[in-house]
Amino acid sequence: MSDFPTNWGRWGDGDELGAVNLITDEVRARGAAEARTGITVSIARVTTPFPLTGGPMASTSAATTAVQTAMLFTGFGAPAMAEVMIVTTHHPEVTHLDAMGHWIEGGRVYPGVDAADSSGPTGVRHGAADVYADGILTRGVLLDLAPGGRLDPGHPVTGADLDAAAARAGIEVLPGDALVVRGGWSLINAGGQALPGMTLDAVRWMHEHGISVYAGDIGDARPPLPGEVPGALHRFALGRLAIPLIDAADPEELAKVCARLGRWTFQFVIAAPRIAGTTGLPVNPLAVF
Amino acid sequence: MSDFPTNWGRWGDGDELGAVNLITDEVRARGAAEARTGITVSIARVTTPFPLTGGPMASTSAATTAVQTAMLFTGFGAPAMAEVMIVTTHHPEVTHLDAMGHWIEGGRVYPGVDAADSSGPTGVRHGAADVYADGILTRGVLLDLAPGGRLDPGHPVTGADLDAAAARAGIEVLPGDALVVRGGWSLINAGGQALPGMTLDAVRWMHEHGISVYAGDIGDARPPLPGEVPGALHRFALGRLAIPLIDAADPEELAKVCARLGRWTFQFVIAAPRIAGTTGLPVNPLAVF
Amino acid sequence: MSDFPTNWGRWGDGDELGAVNLITDEVRARGAAEARTGITVSIARVTTPFPLTGGPMASTSAATTAVQTAMLFTGFGAPAMAEVMIVTTHHPEVTHLDAMGHWIEGGRVYPGVDAADSSGPTGVRHGAADVYADGILTRGVLLDLAPGGRLDPGHPVTGADLDAAAARAGIEVLPGDALVVRGGWSLINAGGQALPGMTLDAVRWMHEHGISVYAGDIGDARPPLPGEVPGALHRFALGRLAIPLIDAADPEELAKVCARLGRWTFQFVIAAPRIAGTTGLPVNPLAVF
Amino acid sequence: MSDFPTNWGRWGDGDELGAVNLITDEVRARGAAEARTGITVSIARVTTPFPLTGGPMASTSAATTAVQTAMLFTGFGAPAMAEVMIVTTHHPEVTHLDAMGHWIEGGRVYPGVDAADSSGPTGVRHGAADVYADGILTRGVLLDLAPGGRLDPGHPVTGADLDAAAARAGIEVLPGDALVVRGGWSLINAGGQALPGMTLDAVRWMHEHGISVYAGDIGDARPPLPGEVPGALHRFALGRLAIPLIDAADPEELAKVCARLGRWTFQFVIAAPRIAGTTGLPVNPLAVF
Repeated sequence: MSDFPTNWGRWGDGDELGAVNLITDEVRARGAAEARTGITVSIARVTTPFPLTGGPMASTSAATTAVQTAMLFTGFGAPAMAEVMIVTTHHPEVTHLDAMGHWIEGGRVYPGVDAADSSGPTGVRHGAADVYADGILTRGVLLDLAPGGRLDPGHPVTGADLDAAAARAGIEVLPGDALVVRGGWSLINAGGQALPGMTLDAVRWMHEHGISVYAGDIGDARPPLPGEVPGALHRFALGRLAIPLIDAADPEELAKVCARLGRWTFQFVIAAPRIAGTTGLPVNPLAVF
Repeated sequence: MSDFPTNWGRWGDGDELGAVNLITDEVRARGAAEARTGITVSIARVTTPFPLTGGPMASTSAATTAVQTAMLFTGFGAPAMAEVMIVTTHHPEVTHLDAMGHWIEGGRVYPGVDAADSSGPTGVRHGAADVYADGILTRGVLLDLAPGGRLDPGHPVTGADLDAAAARAGIEVLPGDALVVRGGWSLINAGGQALPGMTLDAVRWMHEHGISVYAGDIGDARPPLPGEVPGALHRFALGRLAIPLIDAADPEELAKVCARLGRWTFQFVIAAPRIAGTTGLPVNPLAVF
Repeated sequence: MSDFPTNWGRWGDGDELGAVNLITDEVRARGAAEARTGITVSIARVTTPFPLTGGPMASTSAATTAVQTAMLFTGFGAPAMAEVMIVTTHHPEVTHLDAMGHWIEGGRVYPGVDAADSSGPTGVRHGAADVYADGILTRGVLLDLAPGGRLDPGHPVTGADLDAAAARAGIEVLPGDALVVRGGWSLINAGGQALPGMTLDAVRWMHEHGISVYAGDIGDARPPLPGEVPGALHRFALGRLAIPLIDAADPEELAKVCARLGRWTFQFVIAAPRIAGTTGLPVNPLAVF
Repeated sequence: MSDFPTNWGRWGDGDELGAVNLITDEVRARGAAEARTGITVSIARVTTPFPLTGGPMASTSAATTAVQTAMLFTGFGAPAMAEVMIVTTHHPEVTHLDAMGHWIEGGRVYPGVDAADSSGPTGVRHGAADVYADGILTRGVLLDLAPGGRLDPGHPVTGADLDAAAARAGIEVLPGDALVVRGGWSLINAGGQALPGMTLDAVRWMHEHGISVYAGDIGDARPPLPGEVPGALHRFALGRLAIPLIDAADPEELAKVCARLGRWTFQFVIAAPRIAGTTGLPVNPLAVF
């Protein structure tokens, strides 16, 4: 893999934004120009929290642990209801952003920081998700790999697949674009079948096209794709190309809207809660038309 | 107060959106038209989590409990770092959205649902924050009540204050706008002084101007304002007018950008994590210019 | 039910211990005299926590939410492993103590304190579990209602059942004793069948025999027993007689040891963690022979 | 340190109990014989939880994070109050047991298990605290190093200190005893002064006397003792001698009772909640007289 391209050092030794640096003022304006009607579609999964209670008050089993909530006692006759939430951010049930600090490659975090200088027991000091506090806004493109259906189980997604989808949509992917990929799968809906996944070839395609951020329902395959580099998306797109990933996105509704409008580009908006010092955050990516 | 206007019933008996219904297609497009450069500013506080650890690993004291994180052990030599977050959403340290289900007035939740039908031990069934899953996008206006400074302690914010700020900015507030208010205060920075707060008169102004969502660093005063209805913003703007509130917003940076650009309007974007069944969610409101 | 006996007022207007007051010095010494060999048996369920993590790191489903743990990142190469635990105390998967503050009857907590004076959003001020900080030590008796088997589904446990078990064991239940009941059931192992449960008659029996604390695998039936007062154990034993309950105890191993030793009495020990201000605490009741 | 004694291998290659193996039937019976009156004293700190709420409902600051609780909403008019607890077990504010799985020495856990075979992201598989599920009961001895006062700041506790305390009490420490040490200090009450701590010499003394479990208000000094091996108690007593530690014990009340009774021995009881797979658990050690 030593010949695989890298973005370590491309934007300086202390950079924390990674490929989001590709979103120049011109790119940003191109994104804003896509928002004409203000109509928006969420690209996030619906995460239904499991209540942190049990027995007489609730079920004794849990379907998931991505988010748990406990409704709080706010006082007898109190006018407000409230809750506490427990969020395990990097869970496949919740759409979330992976920041640079999430990934360690050879003991180092992009762009070469010693892991022990990036992460400690009290949180993340380099490459935390709040470096994107002012949002990530750019043009988004949806590449639907299986319009109206889903990819075959265990399908290895290649650059050719991405090119074919772009051709079907009649769009050209440009540097700084957010790439949204739909394959019709998720770890949750796989029902024990082999997940499709991104290959190293697809990651190379992302590099060649200057992708600034990736969001998709296709990630790294489980089990790993036979004959392919395992974990290509996280190891190479996030770890080496410094492209922040939106894991567990859900572009189903987006695909329907794009098909209906005949438009496969839109303003892409990420506005993660401004919580400092974490490796990731739950997000609700929006497509604005 | 019986003559105070109400929006209960205005958008039907089962409505959950409240004043966000004022964001019509035309209003939405007006908001989109504000986004020309794509330059964005966050209107959220920086929330620095407190680590859920102690003793040899960290401090034994906590400055706040809005968000706590625990860095997880992901395995010896594991390539990924991760954490779990505990979020007490309605905490003044974290910018968050109050949905309709947060507020009970006379045993009922907007627009008249029995509180027991809205909230239970396992979460919110009516008026949860995820009704805004596709985002809240509209035109935003910043009314800076104390340019370059802060309001007097305990200042009662009235409709006249809001009119004066609009006049200073040379803008007209229109139905469906998101109202962002800056007064230079927060529960956290008050240092024991009396907080300024919104009066019932200001809430009436919001109704007359058709405000769809409120975000500000001025909320309900603590202690209550002498001679004023206590909790006017939560009880009347949220509870009766069904205007979702963004509590603990931080418009400091926004005010600087508006002053520099000489523009006090922008596209206002809320993209709360798509977590179902809660009374509120942490958000990062963005102003897009 | 107005003729049902009550212990409200029996030990004063501000009492928090309830029937544990029946453990006099003499009773305590009687308990200590049972501990001859120091051999102990746990009367607690094994609670297997569910990890607060997911996706690549763990399963995506949860079997229970009584206790959850997250292994903490303690630093690269750190010599210590640690975790954080989230405990939903009143969950049928974890053996726990119900203190007086857990139960409200007619707006009041034993022995007549207004519920709003007992509980608030920040915890319990009257009748918290830490009133038993120095432990509950007394003589324990095991009444096995179904030696070598289990009660019929939906069996209503009466005083006659308890008398029969005592006769089988050849023991006399004395004032101040801890009553341990085995019926071979739990909410977790019921497999959808109707649970047996304690009747009001059995609670009356407990009063007549001066029981100081109750631990059992039989609690209040689910669904309620036909023709019986629902929730008799919690409403009358805990709520009115002020007998602290050890919910979700597991006396299976104890029953085997008792049968093997031919001894149905022992020293009963509760040593709940000394955490203040809660309605209950997880405990591991021990029988010392 | 290579000549320092070790218990690795002493009780087999798969042992998880460590020095608790020293509690033979005879030792156990000796402990039971100490319990004559059944009068008990807690050796645990009082841990006051911090409420997991804020703003209008509670304070915005936290004094500690050892235990946090959230009072749950159990329904309008519900008869039961309940809470969820978040426990960071290895926190100096809460008395807790350190099990074998807590400590890694040279990449291995007692008695030589690879750390990766002992701990994983989902919990502890070797040397978890629930190996003591049936309790730890033995004779306890209190060695009060500073009767009626406290040790000097930064005092290095040696074997000679322990001998002197035993002589003052007129007791002989025997193999299998639980050693309870009082020095009058805790991380919490130190007020910035240098903590006293156990030296390697004191740990050697523990080995020579066959201590089965250690509980004290003196642990490893912070900052480390000048000229002494840092972390002697955790590294050598726990890590090499496999003596489970009760960190952050509070023997103040015990010392008063011992002085009053003129008895420095008692039955020592640990009954940790039966929660599986953790490196430690909160406990309330009891002294029974």
